[in-house]
Amino acid sequence: MDKLTHLDETGAARMVDVGSKAETRRSATARGRIAMQPATLAAVREGSGPKGDVLATARIAGIMAAKKTGELIPMCHPLALDSVTVAFTFDDGGVVVEATASLTAKTGVEMEALTAASIALLTIYDMAKALEKGMVIEQVRLVAKTGGKSGDWHTE
Amino acid sequence: MDKLTHLDETGAARMVDVGSKAETRRSATARGRIAMQPATLAAVREGSGPKGDVLATARIAGIMAAKKTGELIPMCHPLALDSVTVAFTFDDGGVVVEATASLTAKTGVEMEALTAASIALLTIYDMAKALEKGMVIEQVRLVAKTGGKSGDWHTE
Amino acid sequence: MDKLTHLDETGAARMVDVGSKAETRRSATARGRIAMQPATLAAVREGSGPKGDVLATARIAGIMAAKKTGELIPMCHPLALDSVTVAFTFDDGGVVVEATASLTAKTGVEMEALTAASIALLTIYDMAKALEKGMVIEQVRLVAKTGGKSGDWHTE
Amino acid sequence: MDKLTHLDETGAARMVDVGSKAETRRSATARGRIAMQPATLAAVREGSGPKGDVLATARIAGIMAAKKTGELIPMCHPLALDSVTVAFTFDDGGVVVEATASLTAKTGVEMEALTAASIALLTIYDMAKALEKGMVIEQVRLVAKTGGKSGDWHTE
Amino acid sequence: MDKLTHLDETGAARMVDVGSKAETRRSATARGRIAMQPATLAAVREGSGPKGDVLATARIAGIMAAKKTGELIPMCHPLALDSVTVAFTFDDGGVVVEATASLTAKTGVEMEALTAASIALLTIYDMAKALEKGMVIEQVRLVAKTGGKSGDWHTE
Amino acid sequence: MDKLTHLDETGAARMVDVGSKAETRRSATARGRIAMQPATLAAVREGSGPKGDVLATARIAGIMAAKKTGELIPMCHPLALDSVTVAFTFDDGGVVVEATASLTAKTGVEMEALTAASIALLTIYDMAKALEKGMVIEQVRLVAKTGGKSGDWHTE
Repeated sequence: MDKLTHLDETGAARMVDVGSKAETRRSATARGRIAMQPATLAAVREGSGPKGDVLATARIAGIMAAKKTGELIPMCHPLALDSVTVAFTFDDGGVVVEATASLTAKTGVEMEALTAASIALLTIYDMAKALEKGMVIEQVRLVAKTGGKSGDWHTE
Repeated sequence: MDKLTHLDETGAARMVDVGSKAETRRSATARGRIAMQPATLAAVREGSGPKGDVLATARIAGIMAAKKTGELIPMCHPLALDSVTVAFTFDDGGVVVEATASLTAKTGVEMEALTAASIALLTIYDMAKALEKGMVIEQVRLVAKTGGKSGDWHTE
Repeated sequence: MDKLTHLDETGAARMVDVGSKAETRRSATARGRIAMQPATLAAVREGSGPKGDVLATARIAGIMAAKKTGELIPMCHPLALDSVTVAFTFDDGGVVVEATASLTAKTGVEMEALTAASIALLTIYDMAKALEKGMVIEQVRLVAKTGGKSGDWHTE
Repeated sequence: MDKLTHLDETGAARMVDVGSKAETRRSATARGRIAMQPATLAAVREGSGPKGDVLATARIAGIMAAKKTGELIPMCHPLALDSVTVAFTFDDGGVVVEATASLTAKTGVEMEALTAASIALLTIYDMAKALEKGMVIEQVRLVAKTGGKSGDWHTE
Repeated sequence: MDKLTHLDETGAARMVDVGSKAETRRSATARGRIAMQPATLAAVREGSGPKGDVLATARIAGIMAAKKTGELIPMCHPLALDSVTVAFTFDDGGVVVEATASLTAKTGVEMEALTAASIALLTIYDMAKALEKGMVIEQVRLVAKTGGKSGDWHTE
Repeated sequence: MDKLTHLDETGAARMVDVGSKAETRRSATARGRIAMQPATLAAVREGSGPKGDVLATARIAGIMAAKKTGELIPMCHPLALDSVTVAFTFDDGGVVVEATASLTAKTGVEMEALTAASIALLTIYDMAKALEKGMVIEQVRLVAKTGGKSGDWHTE
């Protein structure tokens, strides 16, 4: 259990002390996907084209959620983000989101990127749920990080 | 596009007007899962036992996030929830979360249940990420809803 | 001073007690405008067309701010809004916003409509401020309300 | 459109990356005004004197809103403000607000000053709206900024 | 443990389901006190007179905090308050706060009144801490409640 | 009144300008207590043991509240905390909380520690209030601080 850094030696939750860590430039990229029926996907595509706000709404929700990460995830440090981007691509059966956050700080931004991706996907669900309740959010994961003591990391 | 209820006829995002809908008792249950390596899972189990706060932290994060849904998902109505519960079970390769929200209102609580499940899973990721960065959040979906004009619904 | 309902007889600020008021269907519409140079306006128009998110961002910011009114304006009651819409039109020298909020409650939604309009205009300022710092927000005002004890009201 | 720094090359909204900008001492001052009938103005003056909380409430609302700017304006960076002040003066037909924010950071505080001014004015509207619904918020604008790459700026 | 209503039969925290409770008019009053040295008390008194905002700031902080109770106390229901008032009196060695909240709902407002009192006292501490760090907040307690199934209650 | 740093020379509330202060490593520790009947205390103890979430919920509430201090206390600066811990001990007639916050910044973290302690105690009240309404929160105070211009300080 001593490896779960958010627990102290008695098992109590805590915000890890990052006071002695150096400030370095850090970034993290997360990805996720929402799977849906072809008819739903067609409506989301149409609602995201020249005439529609679907993906704009999801993008903004994701960016704003990244800024709220320290408020949502109990042991996360509040962070002054330098940038957040949220981008979408369509595949055959759904929408893929990729969120990247970066900053110069004592601790990493993995949770900010993952939170942005999750809330962006939930927003797409919300916008399309009148058409299909069975959409599934899946494969939400970190794909890369840079900076910090543990250095760079990416999924193969 | 006219089926995407959160867009108006010009494609602009809007909060759907629920003013003429009847208040009914409603509930929604969402589920999701986080997959991890056996060693990580063992640490999460140990950190959730008599001595550890891991799942308690994730449960509370999920409950608190359900109350913030209207703040996170741009077109969601702010709702006065009657109850929220978040429960976990371990399986062979990860942790499964089930979140249920209920209220008496003009609109449903699907997004509250899904948001509680998502934030609970992200909190588990946060608590265990020092051990494993490659954990994957998956199968986040609505499994049942009751009440409202569209009636009861559940995945088979 | 006794006519300033948010002050008690000693001049102290208070949330007015609406406990004995009846719940009625209410709505309020507010308008405002941001004036800018022709070149800035052209950029905002282009950034709001098929390829750009400017007004979508401002619309979503306005809708989300309406839901936060009770958190921003100290003596406002927290309200469960039934609907919020935010729409824009271009005129010769700027952008006009119109925001409408509605609900069934014991108190009106004037502040929600005015807050949505104000934050939408501030968001346009933010999106265009690299081009022009001298933009001016003006004519932010209530244009109509319906419902409640004081009945319907509109500017001539 | 490439001059709208909050849009990327495809027109998608984004938080501008300020990671490579230098931290400098910055400040911004915004002004605005609320116009009202003489009788309303007299009540606001009386309610702001030795016995009343009107302007104190508006001042505090403005200061607290400055701290929430990154939560309200979607593409704003969350900022650690060094100071915020909000001051009022009466003129013949209304109340003028001036808000100043300052900090040492990679990005400016124009939006914080403008948000403080806007919310302070909305709070005066809220406190006096039982007397007059037709009050108008006007001339909300940046009047000066210092620091940053673009240097000092002020309205003539 | 089955009497701790916020725990389920396994000891897990939960938001109690109030779905089957009747809506009744309810109120709660809490009190608390901050003790300080005579010189500090004199400064707080002076800073709260005709020229100063100390108690106005504390009052507004308390009212705004009451509206945030559901966000601060994990298992509290979000409530649509009908009214909140916060009042202060000076005694020989400190300041006494009394906060009252009321609403018509399925659950009580004890926590809202207690939270308003606590945050008002903390705000006084903040305003005066440059003068005295040793001030003590004490006797924060519920003094009366009305309404609900358990009926009226008050301290003797 | 000039010693109340949160008031300007006219008595108006303001956020003190910390722009010219040096960043130093700072910490603060606050303590408080909730007194209750033996039967209530026994239930809280049991609900905090291997099977129960009472103190875990209070600990997480306190940590999350520390991060919200700048939002709750009007004149507090928003701070990027390095760490927060909240710990409990039982005594004969109640529960004692001790909260410590630390950071490297231009201003101190006394309010963050005091806010964490206060909200943790209010959460215990909430969890146990079905058993006893008369619990009293008392002795909430700063016990130590380090760093900053005024140097170290502790209660004897």
